[in-house]
Amino acid sequence: MNVHDLRTPALVVDVDALDANIDTMARARPGGALRPHVKAFKSTEMARHVADRGGHVAFCCATLREVEGMASAGLGDDLLLANETLDADRLRRLVDRGDAAVTVAVDSPETVEVAAAAGVDVLVDVDVGLPRCGCRPEEAGQLAELARSRGLHVRGVMGYEGHAVGNPDRAARAGMVSTSMDLLRQAHRDVGGDIVSAGGTGTYDLHDLATEVQAGSYLLMDTHYARLALPFAQALRLTVTVISTSPTKGWGVVDCGLKSLGMDHGNPTIPGWSVFFCSDEHTTFVPREGGDGRLPAVGDRLPVVPAHVDPTVAYHELLHLVRGDEVIDVWPVDLRGW
Amino acid sequence: MNVHDLRTPALVVDVDALDANIDTMARARPGGALRPHVKAFKSTEMARHVADRGGHVAFCCATLREVEGMASAGLGDDLLLANETLDADRLRRLVDRGDAAVTVAVDSPETVEVAAAAGVDVLVDVDVGLPRCGCRPEEAGQLAELARSRGLHVRGVMGYEGHAVGNPDRAARAGMVSTSMDLLRQAHRDVGGDIVSAGGTGTYDLHDLATEVQAGSYLLMDTHYARLALPFAQALRLTVTVISTSPTKGWGVVDCGLKSLGMDHGNPTIPGWSVFFCSDEHTTFVPREGGDGRLPAVGDRLPVVPAHVDPTVAYHELLHLVRGDEVIDVWPVDLRGW
Repeated sequence: MNVHDLRTPALVVDVDALDANIDTMARARPGGALRPHVKAFKSTEMARHVADRGGHVAFCCATLREVEGMASAGLGDDLLLANETLDADRLRRLVDRGDAAVTVAVDSPETVEVAAAAGVDVLVDVDVGLPRCGCRPEEAGQLAELARSRGLHVRGVMGYEGHAVGNPDRAARAGMVSTSMDLLRQAHRDVGGDIVSAGGTGTYDLHDLATEVQAGSYLLMDTHYARLALPFAQALRLTVTVISTSPTKGWGVVDCGLKSLGMDHGNPTIPGWSVFFCSDEHTTFVPREGGDGRLPAVGDRLPVVPAHVDPTVAYHELLHLVRGDEVIDVWPVDLRGW
Repeated sequence: MNVHDLRTPALVVDVDALDANIDTMARARPGGALRPHVKAFKSTEMARHVADRGGHVAFCCATLREVEGMASAGLGDDLLLANETLDADRLRRLVDRGDAAVTVAVDSPETVEVAAAAGVDVLVDVDVGLPRCGCRPEEAGQLAELARSRGLHVRGVMGYEGHAVGNPDRAARAGMVSTSMDLLRQAHRDVGGDIVSAGGTGTYDLHDLATEVQAGSYLLMDTHYARLALPFAQALRLTVTVISTSPTKGWGVVDCGLKSLGMDHGNPTIPGWSVFFCSDEHTTFVPREGGDGRLPAVGDRLPVVPAHVDPTVAYHELLHLVRGDEVIDVWPVDLRGW
């Protein structure tokens, strides 16, 4: 099938760009030095491809649905729920299935009790500067002690410097990572275990303490991360159709919008055009300044680059893998929801 | 089932608030004077309830998937695709099924040809001030002529004053509606037909020219529309779980985020708390200024009110209907995708 025959809006992945991204990361952080983050693509077919080509077997998940789906797909060798959960029943059912080795992040006595009720391994999640989950570094040892007293295997620590990963100044980013990892080092001393899990796409090559980096965006990339000048190419776009324009209008409209694009990083980009605004199922665009002012025709297909990949993918059912204009595979986005 | 037993994040609809909204709108715009917009809720069960209780049988859709789903659910008496499509094959298959009366918006010779290839009725979509779809008012007559020359039944005009519906100043809103409807009146004179379709929740009671108003948000509402002081109550919230906090942290984290909330209107609201920021599966909140500074406990459930209903619902699989804390029904969000 040709990409121009896809029903639009369609998520399209440039397979050569994807594979180059996989290869670049696998050289920098081979095998277990990377724990690819499933939340960035939410597709077991994609995870299998990353495992096969990149040689990474341990994965990171943000939701129980992602963990369950990865286990069902036979990708459960080492799954980390890099997030806190209070759902002991569901976690226990996951363990009882026996098709996955599951580790969960804990940052409170309550989440330790949930892990204990389910009998999963844990990482102590440490606040290293992002005001989100994670215990204070000085509380990590006590939490590990509690976990061990409840019979749990404490594999180590995790600490996500999410406040640093998007900083476009590499030196500043490195400084922030260093500060965060000093906190995580202290916590790791108190906690013990083999694993120090940290980082993301923006800081993948700025870690020495971390035994594994949790990166996912490097696979597909987006316009937001593009500002960081990383050696990863944008591999994801939407293919959309021009549904309205005319010589008398001065603008055009394509059939993607707020329900097919994650909008928290702002508007998407339409290469060659200037995006005006998005509504539910529309994006209005105008000619760029300095151009010839001509608009594409009704029925033309255009590429649209989302500003934020992760919440964009979560709106879609399918990833269409393309080489040039040929659709060579279709992967379900089968890990959506919770 | 109790609402506190739902897997989180869960979309929850207060059925009494929903029914009051249906009743209020049905009194203002009974029967065919309202064409409820399916895009706001994407659920055939919800549409059936709106038809049964509100007495509206004609519906508005924004995507072919919505039209197809409504037809399959037996709700195809009078379905308007209030949007342009270039997919003649799919439109024709829809007509060939014979289970729905389908009308589509056209605003160009190209979209007229698509409608002609499928044999559907049309409304001429007119630009009344929102820079999106719609032909110029002075071109509407010519387009209607073209459509009739291709054997199509031209039912009238539509013009959506989307630039006006969110203006919090009622007098200003009314003035903008009036200006827009002057343009639509002119186009309607040239086009003919019985239907003048316009408006939305923010302008539902500011129309006299329009034979039908296209409103959907009035059913569930959101914090953005709440600024307009309309007689509709917020009926939608997310139920979420506090997954991280501690007395030493100063903030709490709940398990909803960028993949469960439409973010184009900004952050959601957590009644009683102040939202700090959202990430993929987290929302960090802090005590409100002037409060006692105490945070809820890990495991507590909180309600979260999305800033924009439509793209929020599009992330979810289920609407849980509740009365008090009791879940009395569950409606699939079965019209997602395209």
